Amino acid sequence: MYELIFANFALHIKLDVAEIEQIKYRLQSKTIKKKTGLLSAGAICRNIYFVNKGCLRIFNVDGEGEEHNVSFCPENWWAVDISSFSHQTPAFYNIDALEDTEVSYLSYPVLEELYIAIPKLERFFRILTQNGFHLYQQRITSNLSKSAEERYTLFQKQYPKLEQRITQKQIASYLGITPVFLSMIRGRNT
Amino acid sequence: MYELIFANFALHIKLDVAEIEQIKYRLQSKTIKKKTGLLSAGAICRNIYFVNKGCLRIFNVDGEGEEHNVSFCPENWWAVDISSFSHQTPAFYNIDALEDTEVSYLSYPVLEELYIAIPKLERFFRILTQNGFHLYQQRITSNLSKSAEERYTLFQKQYPKLEQRITQKQIASYLGITPVFLSMIRGRNT
Repeated sequence: MYELIFANFALHIKLDVAEIEQIKYRLQSKTIKKKTGLLSAGAICRNIYFVNKGCLRIFNVDGEGEEHNVSFCPENWWAVDISSFSHQTPAFYNIDALEDTEVSYLSYPVLEELYIAIPKLERFFRILTQNGFHLYQQRITSNLSKSAEERYTLFQKQYPKLEQRITQKQIASYLGITPVFLSMIRGRNT
Repeated sequence: MYELIFANFALHIKLDVAEIEQIKYRLQSKTIKKKTGLLSAGAICRNIYFVNKGCLRIFNVDGEGEEHNVSFCPENWWAVDISSFSHQTPAFYNIDALEDTEVSYLSYPVLEELYIAIPKLERFFRILTQNGFHLYQQRITSNLSKSAEERYTLFQKQYPKLEQRITQKQIASYLGITPVFLSMIRGRNT
């Protein structure tokens, strides 16, 4: 069950056997049932999650109670409210499971200790944070400047095959359009 | 002229004398005249800037040609389009100078070399990126959920005394309101 996460670390840093053991020893795991919450807005995001299996979504709820999906986190994705986690302040986002999901995770104090023990992790999470920032900014700017069709194409690229796993409603909420408009776009493309 | 930047590094990491010399040797400096640009949207953000004196602003221009200030960078602030810099892709933001400004800066390849030579810098820029993400997210959520008055108070806290240095127009653009509405808010508060 650790294969995916260590393959993910290996994208940016080289860990030796002892370091891998040290991280394994500190990693925790859990299974989240479909439609169950992992983080609620207003609570502090105490852990950073890596998805081994299943799919999470990160979303916010507006003043009218409407949900807006910010990102999906299928296998190999990290899920966290970075701002809440890194400052241990109340989260703006919610995280819940769209499928039964298995995650590995590190708590904030454990990760802080690991940074001291294995300074290479600074590099990994520096790059991960930069990538997160990049994705987040792309989301914001594409919502401002791209058409719904273009955003749908980007979604398909970003999340290959995810479309078959999650509902139309969830995808529409990610694209910022209604499910009816989404099925019109899909109809045009087939 | 290096005092501010090394005091800034010292907030998160301890550099020894040799490391400080190594960084000094690689740091470049320049002066940007008031109203002059440092980065244009669409270009690649090749450097990360630290402000020694003066004030920069980071802003985007919408489809109607309207400018929106995302952040101000007076003394002790770092200025960069993180997304563009870290991926060396076209910038979404513009950066220009609101006053004659002195910056120290590191180019992308120089910083990549410094990460190898002085791995502690990974920690510094990991924390800086997290802080940047946090500020950026706060900006987005406060625009969604806070009143103009509250945003004005946050601005005053975030940038003590900056109000006396920059125009009403620049502050209004940061708050997402008209200069007329800003002077009404200011009138109420005095």
